[in-house]
Order: sequence, then structure tokens, then C-alpha cells
Amino acid sequence: MRSPHTTDNSVVLRLARQLSRHFSPAWLACIPLAAIITVVWGTAAMAQSDVAIDQAGQVQIILDTIFLLIASVLVIFMNAGFGMLEAGFCRQKNAVNILSKNLIVFAVATIAYWAIGYAFMYGEGTSFIGLKGFFFNGSSIPYTGEEWYIEEAIDGETVQVLQFVPESVSFLFQVAFAATAATIVSGAVAERIKFDAFLIFSFLLVAVSYPITGHWQWDGAWLYEFGFHDFAGSTIVHSVGGWAALVGAAVVGPRLGKYRDGQVHAIPGHNMSIATLGCLILWIGWFGFNPGSQLAADAHVPYIAITTNLSAAAGGITATATSWVKDGKPDLSMIINGILAGLVGITAGCDGVSFLSAVIIGAISGVLVVFSVAFFDAIKIDDPVGATSVHLVCGIWGTLAVGLFTQETGLFTGGGIQQLIAQIVGILSIGGFTVAFSFIVWYALSAVLGGIRVEKDEELRGLDIGEHGMEAYSGFVKESDVIFRGTATGSETEG
Amino acid sequence: MRSPHTTDNSVVLRLARQLSRHFSPAWLACIPLAAIITVVWGTAAMAQSDVAIDQAGQVQIILDTIFLLIASVLVIFMNAGFGMLEAGFCRQKNAVNILSKNLIVFAVATIAYWAIGYAFMYGEGTSFIGLKGFFFNGSSIPYTGEEWYIEEAIDGETVQVLQFVPESVSFLFQVAFAATAATIVSGAVAERIKFDAFLIFSFLLVAVSYPITGHWQWDGAWLYEFGFHDFAGSTIVHSVGGWAALVGAAVVGPRLGKYRDGQVHAIPGHNMSIATLGCLILWIGWFGFNPGSQLAADAHVPYIAITTNLSAAAGGITATATSWVKDGKPDLSMIINGILAGLVGITAGCDGVSFLSAVIIGAISGVLVVFSVAFFDAIKIDDPVGATSVHLVCGIWGTLAVGLFTQETGLFTGGGIQQLIAQIVGILSIGGFTVAFSFIVWYALSAVLGGIRVEKDEELRGLDIGEHGMEAYSGFVKESDVIFRGTATGSETEG
Amino acid sequence: MRSPHTTDNSVVLRLARQLSRHFSPAWLACIPLAAIITVVWGTAAMAQSDVAIDQAGQVQIILDTIFLLIASVLVIFMNAGFGMLEAGFCRQKNAVNILSKNLIVFAVATIAYWAIGYAFMYGEGTSFIGLKGFFFNGSSIPYTGEEWYIEEAIDGETVQVLQFVPESVSFLFQVAFAATAATIVSGAVAERIKFDAFLIFSFLLVAVSYPITGHWQWDGAWLYEFGFHDFAGSTIVHSVGGWAALVGAAVVGPRLGKYRDGQVHAIPGHNMSIATLGCLILWIGWFGFNPGSQLAADAHVPYIAITTNLSAAAGGITATATSWVKDGKPDLSMIINGILAGLVGITAGCDGVSFLSAVIIGAISGVLVVFSVAFFDAIKIDDPVGATSVHLVCGIWGTLAVGLFTQETGLFTGGGIQQLIAQIVGILSIGGFTVAFSFIVWYALSAVLGGIRVEKDEELRGLDIGEHGMEAYSGFVKESDVIFRGTATGSETEG
Repeated sequence: MRSPHTTDNSVVLRLARQLSRHFSPAWLACIPLAAIITVVWGTAAMAQSDVAIDQAGQVQIILDTIFLLIASVLVIFMNAGFGMLEAGFCRQKNAVNILSKNLIVFAVATIAYWAIGYAFMYGEGTSFIGLKGFFFNGSSIPYTGEEWYIEEAIDGETVQVLQFVPESVSFLFQVAFAATAATIVSGAVAERIKFDAFLIFSFLLVAVSYPITGHWQWDGAWLYEFGFHDFAGSTIVHSVGGWAALVGAAVVGPRLGKYRDGQVHAIPGHNMSIATLGCLILWIGWFGFNPGSQLAADAHVPYIAITTNLSAAAGGITATATSWVKDGKPDLSMIINGILAGLVGITAGCDGVSFLSAVIIGAISGVLVVFSVAFFDAIKIDDPVGATSVHLVCGIWGTLAVGLFTQETGLFTGGGIQQLIAQIVGILSIGGFTVAFSFIVWYALSAVLGGIRVEKDEELRGLDIGEHGMEAYSGFVKESDVIFRGTATGSETEG
Repeated sequence: MRSPHTTDNSVVLRLARQLSRHFSPAWLACIPLAAIITVVWGTAAMAQSDVAIDQAGQVQIILDTIFLLIASVLVIFMNAGFGMLEAGFCRQKNAVNILSKNLIVFAVATIAYWAIGYAFMYGEGTSFIGLKGFFFNGSSIPYTGEEWYIEEAIDGETVQVLQFVPESVSFLFQVAFAATAATIVSGAVAERIKFDAFLIFSFLLVAVSYPITGHWQWDGAWLYEFGFHDFAGSTIVHSVGGWAALVGAAVVGPRLGKYRDGQVHAIPGHNMSIATLGCLILWIGWFGFNPGSQLAADAHVPYIAITTNLSAAAGGITATATSWVKDGKPDLSMIINGILAGLVGITAGCDGVSFLSAVIIGAISGVLVVFSVAFFDAIKIDDPVGATSVHLVCGIWGTLAVGLFTQETGLFTGGGIQQLIAQIVGILSIGGFTVAFSFIVWYALSAVLGGIRVEKDEELRGLDIGEHGMEAYSGFVKESDVIFRGTATGSETEG
Repeated sequence: MRSPHTTDNSVVLRLARQLSRHFSPAWLACIPLAAIITVVWGTAAMAQSDVAIDQAGQVQIILDTIFLLIASVLVIFMNAGFGMLEAGFCRQKNAVNILSKNLIVFAVATIAYWAIGYAFMYGEGTSFIGLKGFFFNGSSIPYTGEEWYIEEAIDGETVQVLQFVPESVSFLFQVAFAATAATIVSGAVAERIKFDAFLIFSFLLVAVSYPITGHWQWDGAWLYEFGFHDFAGSTIVHSVGGWAALVGAAVVGPRLGKYRDGQVHAIPGHNMSIATLGCLILWIGWFGFNPGSQLAADAHVPYIAITTNLSAAAGGITATATSWVKDGKPDLSMIINGILAGLVGITAGCDGVSFLSAVIIGAISGVLVVFSVAFFDAIKIDDPVGATSVHLVCGIWGTLAVGLFTQETGLFTGGGIQQLIAQIVGILSIGGFTVAFSFIVWYALSAVLGGIRVEKDEELRGLDIGEHGMEAYSGFVKESDVIFRGTATGSETEG
């Protein structure tokens, strides 16, 4: 749809026909001349028309740029969503720690991806990894001008024409995406991970692991060639964060008191208001995440927004219903996670499934996430915010759903098994790499830092005091104050 | 301003004149030929020019699309605004319940409007109701391509030209609007409505009632023909939500302890921080709500943004002043409701009143809302968040204001009484329908569910435990804990 | 890049050459005629082409408009950021007061700037002050149509052509900026300023002081002529707010108990969750603040977004590290202020420094802010939220950094000392004016209102009850309740 070149060769013949139709024979002697002139004119007019088309084309490129910028802002806003969600789902004694992690992680990711990650992901290199463009420096962006404005000779004049969306805006959009992967990890290891361990892990995930697996697909390398489809990153972003989160949660171990006496003890979050706010911020952030992945402002963008929204809605409703039926009452944390599950589930296929399929994908995501949370508790992997269930389990489901529901290529929609096989290969290869990377890094960090988990005393008292020397809600009386000061038991209180 | 067709017939005459002016008589023999050729050329060049104009026109359509998408995102963000506002204005023991309602209501509204509401509102049908397009399915949107790209023969070439903003983005914008109406109800019936009763009512409001009255005006049916003007929905959205809220609050009855011993007992909200955040989110959400209702990106859009902003500011200031004078101190909840009152008040006329009129409309809204809150308490209709005062009273005022202040048609601005009469007809017809619908549905729900209000014990203890089995602020000591545990009175505590 | 006029005179010669190359001599007799016709055609086609270019140019203008509208919304959203940040950093007993200030200040600023400020800043006038356009009334905006659409005669047809971005959207963007300056003051004088004193000061700052100094630069007056560069307002917005805040904090004096017994007593904020949320909202708001200051949608916009983001990230990281090294633990309030410091620091030069320079500017900002907070405490100027350190100190640093790092003109990047001198002149002149204005107004208010500070009793009890008659977190037990009710000491408690 962008600046198509309308070739006008046929126009001369049409003109000749029109002349012969509308004018008397006497005049027709002049036709040969007219023909010549119109040929010349045709050529020149095309050039003229090119200028005009380029004008509009330029505006389209700027529109693409602004759209991607806004999408980037929405995705960056997701950091606030994750921050509020994860803080709200944890205990108040660890709130400062979680907030600090979720705030600084975007700063760390920005620098890591700028210095290293972007080159590994999108630089020239091998099919496995990119190798050029460290410290993305702006020499290739419009600021200096030369490279993105290509000189074109039009009618003897040299005109500078902007050819593509400036790389700067692509970089910004990719930075926002890269940070998301790291943020997902934050929630799963919350309330017991050391602050420095998390920072270093996040840096390495964004600088090395995420860009490598991202390169395989989004830079058009081997996985893309294989036919894998992951439009906005159910696998490339969410399951990568989810795998790293799962390994982290497994390595660091469950929180004190979570699994004792053979039972699962629910540890309620301290602030459902900000958790709900976080969910709603993430919901609107996804309107940057998925539609923005079109990487251009075109007529298909709102289609993607609708599949995204329908899946989120369906996920929220089925999670509510499942929670209601399973546990007797509709749990707010399940409504929240159901919506997020629907969002993650549709991310891979949001560009190519029908609206009804989007509802189905979301509905299944909402059911999955409720049972997944119970499953991980059953195998004693403690994930305080359900990040693994939302991002890993529904990320995998969403990636498989591409092979089932995508129009024309899906198993249920007229295609064969081929797409589904490509999806499985993508899930396994990216998952395998991320799990291996995460294990190595978490264990290396454990060796270097003398463990990645805070001391038992610190965990009981809360990481806010231990890691940051401050508390989140000064001036309020907490249950732990009453218990500590009043009865002085202090064993595994959850205040 | 969109792609106007410049007709070039006059160009030939002008060319002939230029020729005769600039060249010697000898050459002028060739003029007839030149005339012919330029005629031909004129035709062809126009076709050429059409292509160019279409190029730019296409970009404009994409710009419209992206603008509407962003406006939709802002309106969807209003769910976070309503959620924080309403939760903050209620007691902490009911926070999970209100948050759950405000979160799931957008999911329910999305599905309800997709399956049914959109067809009733914008489908082909009668002047009363639309009847086609259930389960809006994307067959008419760019995904499949055929219908929105119209084939045009240009210079013998067939080109696919995007003709209109894709229906998908209109649908998304309408979904966001529909959800707003339901969200308004949530606050007025807060702290005592059953969760399932609210969900079913919301589904029916968005699926049936809101689309029918919306169809009358925004699908160009009888009310539109009558001359009613409601640019962005003071009546169609806000007063519809307000009427449903009023009926709901009246039917469900006031909260325990609100009106006792012949007095009004203020029940303070539990979190003014998130309530203020909610107000500010709504404020920016309105920049999607009102300017987005232009349904196109054009030069008038920022005008609408300014009237909206001025009215909000004026409403906030007069509500602050009124509250200060009336009650001795400026009440934060009145500042918040004053701003919202100004926003609701300007919604109907934001496209056509002068900036000064916008300030006046907002200023009156801010005064109105303070007295309206007192009025509803005087008639013992208990609305915990003031939704009826903000959305119904100021929605009606804003709709009337169109008949008073709109440039050229308003009573005070050079027009006659005609516009004002049309406004009154619109208010009464839409209000009448919505009230009747709401009464029927609330009473039917009451019959089916055995009442729409929770048990007295549950209301005292809080709906969070009763309806959801969890609390919003785990780990904090609440006044109710101290009272229950310490002195065990338990009578109508407000913790 | 906007609608460049491609001059086509050369085209005729090229056509003549093409004719002579492609056709037999017999035909060449007709060349003179052809030449004439093509000359004529050239003229006409240019007009045609102009129409097409204007089409695209019009779309570009609308794109500029929509981009500026969205940037305005992001900047307006910063009010929510400042509100949450400042409320979170203060004590819960003053939360309603701070929230009220931050909410109403945007309303006050809107009206003040509309009625007076815009005319002083951008109206025709002297080099010192603008003097026309009070009560910006829309007569010059597209609503009434005549002035912004310029009539052009194209091929004998009169066409209305939109020439510039509508003034309404510029006004909206400027309103959002003006409000920012006032909001900065709010935090520094928090927890002891009278509500009415703050309101009046804010009105005057936005109506008079900010517009005058802004006029010097952004309306192209004497400071602009001098060569001062402040792209998005490190000095014009942030240091203006910062100077007014510094004077306010100095005049009103420190909070009770802050500096006693020769020591600095930290008074912790009550809600780090909303403070962190505030920081993240401000972060994304800055993507409107800085890129929007380009005042047009073009290819350079994302470049500005990247320098902004890199500086914020670097500031966050160095502030974390500095706080960690200096105080033993990474303080969340320092992470927050470091990010904001990086944002303020890059604001003046975000358009013209390299990415690496942006990282350096941000990194230095992050270090500066930590030591600045300690410095102001050392000289006993009590600024509860660190507004002076963030907005004044880093605002000055960022303005100087333009003279050091801007490509081609900076001292370290190939330029001489000239730019740096211009920067110093700008900082001193604007700072001097703002300080003088602030002193006069604060002292005048003190005289008129009988002091600008609340009574000692009210300060101890909290401004929420004293100024607004309500509390922010009803239903929660606060430490002050326990102490007051339990042990009844009450001396300088910080609950």
C-alpha cells in the first residue's frame, strides 16, 4: 500500500484512441506529433507524479515513525504496569525492593541493549548472532542526515528523499521490548532474591540471551527461514522472560513458609488497588506491544488491536469463571492474571487469526492460567505473582495457537500440520537456549555473590529494610508491628 | 479538506490565452493543435493528479485510523481512571470488590458489544434498532482485503484504493465508549451490590440498552434527524450511565449507617491518592473521548481538546470554591468531582462552543455537582462516589448547554429555541428508555437472584471477604481490626 | 523536508534533448512547437504538481497537529506523575493536601495561561514581554476558518489551503508546559504551606513570571537572538520551577523536626508505591515533553526520544550506584530522583547531543542529584521531595551541557566557548528574574495572608485535617493514632 508505482505506458494508446474518437479526420494528421509529445509528456508527467507520490510517501514514513514512537511509549509504560502489579501481589515489607527492581530494570535494560543487545539482535552477523553496531551511535540516523535521506535525481534536480523509517525509532521500540523480558523475571523471584543478583541477571538477559534468540526470528535468521511465526513475541519476549523466571524461581527456592506441613500456604499480596491498576496499564500497554509490531502505520493495525482486546476480555472472563467454579469465589488476582493470560496468548497470532479465534485463544488462556498457578504450587515452584503461568505457559499456548488458528496456515483453518511443527521447533529451540543460559547465569551468580538469596533473617524482616534501609509505607501500622511489638513471636509472619 | 477534486477545465482556456500573449502570430497557427493536445493533456494530467491526490488521501486515511486507535487507547485507559477513583472513594473493606467490578466490566463490555451491541447500534435495521452484524467478524475489514480497498481504473491500470477508515478502528473506538457507560454504574451501587447482579446488568446495558439509544443518534436514526446534537456523549454515554446508576442506587438502597437518626453520615473513602490518580487518568482519557469523537484527524481536533480542558479546569476551580464557601474547607473529593463534572458538561458541545463558553459551561458544572451531591443525600439516594451527580446531572446540563452556547444555533449565540428543544427531546427520550430498561432489569435480576444486595453481615464485614474471599490490603492494621479485636463492638464500623 | 518546491525549468531542455535523440529529423521540425507546448505544459504541470504537493503537505500539517496533541496529552499526564511522586514522598497526614495542590494546580494553570500567560509569552509585544492575545479566543484557529486556511488560486480555482499547524494545538502544548513549572514548586513547599498561598503563587507564576522569561527565548526575543539554546526547557521550565521552589522552601522554612539537635532527621515518605508510579509516569510523560518540543512530526523526533531515554537510564543507574556507595544501600528515593535528574538534565540538549553524550549528561545528573540533596539539607533548606535538586540543579547542569556537548557548537565537540557563554547568560538572566519575582510574591502573600505557613498545631496534626477537613487513608491505623491514643506524647511525630 505504500507508494506503489503506477506505470503509465498504456496511457499513450488510450490518448490516441480518445483523439480518434473525439476529433474530425482533418485534425488526425496531427496525431503522430501528438503521440510523440504525449510520449514525452507521459515520461515527464510520470516524473512529476513521482515527486507527488514521494511527497505522500514521505508523509507516510513520518506517520510510521510517529506511530512507532507512540507504540514505544505505550510499551515503556508497561514498566509501570509490571511494577504496580508485582508490588501489589507481594507483601508490603518487600514493596520497596520490588519497586526498585522494576524501576531500575528499565534503566539497566536500556543501557544493556544500547551497548550490546541491539548489535547481537539486529547487527550484521551469522544466522546465530548479530555482531555489528555496538553502542548504537546515531551515525545512521537522521540527525546526521546522510544515510537515511537518499539523493534522487528528479528532472535534473537532486532531491533528498527519506527512504525508510529512521532506525532510531526501531531501536527505541526494540529497547522497550527487551526490557519487558527482564521485567517478567522480577516477579517470579520476588521477596527473596538479592538486589545485585537480579540487576546482573537482568543486564545479561537483555544484553545477550534475549537478543540472540530474538535474532533467530526477528532479524530473519534461521528460525524465520524455517517458517516460525511469532508476530509480537509470545515466545520471543514472553516465554523467554517466563523461562528465565521459572529457572530463577526454581534455583532460588520458595519463600519461607509458603510450603510447610505438606500444604500450600497462600501469601496474599499487600495492595490489590495498585495490582489492578498495573493490570489495566498493561492492558493499554499491549495496544503498543501488538499493533506496534506491525512496524508501520497501515490499515491492518486496528485489526491487531481488536484481536488483542478480544483475547484479553475472553481470558479475564474465563479465568473469573474458572476461579469461581474451582474455588467458590472469583479471586481478583485470577481476574487480573486471566486478562494478562489472554494478552500473552494472543501476542503471537494477533495479526492473523479471526476475531472468533482470538476469543477462543483468550478463553483457553484464562482457563490455563488458573490451573497453571495451582500446578506450579503443586511442584513447589513458588512464583509470587504468577509470572510463569502468565508469560511462559500462555506464551507457549499462544505460539502453538498460531499453528492452529492462523487463517490459511493453521491446522483448524485450512492449513496442514506444517505451521504447527514450525511453532514447536521455535518454542523448543528458544526455550532450550534460554533455560540453559539462565541456569548457567543464576549458578554463576550464586558462586560469585555467595548465593543469590538474602539471609533468612532479612527475608523474615523484609527486603525493604535489608536491601534498601527504608520501608514503603511509613506511618502506617502493620500487622507485623503489632505482632512483633505485642506478642513478639515473629515466626514466619506475613506482614 | 480531504482529497478535494480540483477540476481543471479552465486550464485549457488559460493556456490558450498564455500562448496568444507570449508568442508571435506565426506560431499561433499551431494553437488549435496545441489546444487539442492540451485538452488531452488536461484529461490525462488530471488522472495523474488523481493518483497523486489519492496517495495523499490514502495517507490521510491511515492517519485518521492511527488517531482513532490512539483515542481508543486513551478511552480504554479511562477504565483505570474509574477503577482508581471508585475504589479510592469507597472503604478498604470493599476495595477488592470494586476493583474486580471495574476490571471485569471492560472485559464483559468488550464481549457484549462485539457479540450483540455493535449490531444493535450500527447495523442495518430500523430507525429504532440495528439488526445486522452480530459477532463482528472482520470479513468487512482490511484483513481479508477485498471490501475496503476499492478497485479503481486509473489510466487503464487497476489500482486498489483504500476508501475509508477501516471499520475495525471504528469498532474499537465504540467498544471503548460502550464500556464507559457500564463503568459509571459501578460506583453508584458500590459497597452493597452482589457481584453477579452487577455483571449481568452490565452485560445487558452494553449489549442492549446503550446500543439502542446510541443508534437513535449516532447511527443517524430518528433523533439525529430531529436535530439533536451530542458530539461525544454527555447524554448518549454519560447520562445513560448516570440514569442506570440512579435507578440502581435507588433500587438497591443506601449503605448501612449512611442515613440514620435523621442525619447524613459521611462515609469517607479509604484512599485519596488513588482517587486523585483516577481523576487525572480520566482527565487525559477525555482527550481521547472528546477529540476522538471527531472520528478523523483534522485541524479541528485540537480545538475540541481545548474546550475540553478549559471546562475541566473551570469545573475544578468552581467546585473547589463552592465547597470552600459551603463547607468551610476545600474538600478534595469535590475538587475531583468538579473536574469530572466539567469534563462531562463539555462533552456534548465541545466541538462547537467558544472557549469562553467552555469556561462558563465548566464553571456551572463545578457548582452544580457540589449541590447535586447534597441533593441526592437529601432524598436518601446513596451514591458512594457521586457518579449520579457527575454523569447524570452534568450530562443533562452539558446537553442543554449545546442548545444555549453552540455557535450560531445556541439560544445565547444567535440561534433560536429550536436547538434547545431538540436537546430536551433527546434527554427525555434517551433518559426515559434507559430508566425503564434499568428498572426492569434490576427488578428481574432481583427476582432471579433472590435480591441484588448482599446480606447485612457481609456488608458489615465487607464485600471483599464475602464476595471474593480476600482482602485488598493484607498486612496493614485497619481500624476495624482494632475495634473488632479490641472492643468487639462491631456496629456499623466504617473500617 | 516539508513540501519543498521542485522547480522544473530544466525539464524543457531535457525534453528537447530526448526528442532529438529518439526521433527522425523529419519530425524534428515540430520541435519548436513541441517546445512551446512543453513550456506551457511545464507551467501547468507544475501547478498540477503543486496541488499534489499541497495535498501531501496538508496531511503533513495534520500529522504535525495530531503529534503535538498526543505530546500535549503526555505532558498533561505528568501532572499525575508529579502528584503521585510528591504525595508518596510526603507523610500520610499531608497527603490530601499535596494531592489537592497537584490536582488543582493544573486547573489554575490552565485558566491563568489562557487568560494572561499565553499573551505575555507569545503575543506581539516588546523584546521583554508579549502584550496581545489575552483570553485566547479561538478567532485565530480553524474553528472559524478564515485565518488558518489561506486562499490560493490554483489553475483559476480558489482553494482553501491549511498553511500551518493550528494555533490551538500550540496553545494546548504550551498550557501543559506552563503547568509543569508550577507543579515543581508544590513539592518543595509541601507539608507546611497554606493552600491558598500556594494557589495564588501558582496563578501568578503561570500568568506572569514563566511567560515573561519564556518569551525571551521561545518567542524569539532577546535571549534567543543572543544564541541561548534550551530545546525543551531545562532552564525555561525546570529551573524556573526550581528557583521558585528554592525561594519558597527558604521563605517558608523547614518542617518541624527536620533539623533539630544539630542533625538532619530524615522524614520518610508514606507511600513508595505511588512515588515509583509517579516516576514512571513522568518518564513516559517526558516522551511528550522533549520530542514534542520539536513542534513537528519529522524524522528527528525519535532521535530526541532516544537521547531522553538514555539520559534517564544513565541517571537512574549512577544515582543508584552513588547512593549505594555513599549510604551503604541503594535508596529507592534516590533511584527515582536519579531518573528524573537524567530527564531534566537532557531536556535542554536532547535535540543536538550524541547518544554517548546523552549517557554522560544523564550519568552526571544522577551523581549530582544525590549530593545536591545532601547539600540542601546541609544549608537547612528543607525540600521534602528533592524538587530543587532535580529541577534546579540538574536544570542548570543540563543547560550548561548544551554548551559542552552539542554537536558542532559544544566546547568538547568542536565548537568554542561561545555557546557556553550564551548558556550562562540564559541561566543567570532567567534565574535572576524568577528569584526576584518569587521573593516579591512570597513576601507579598505573607503580608496579605498573615503568613504563608500553617500554624504549628496544624502542621503537627497534618494539613489534611487542617486545610481540608478529611484524611487520605480512612480506615487504616496510623502510627500517630497509636502514639496519640496510646501514649499521648505527640511531640513532632512523623505519622
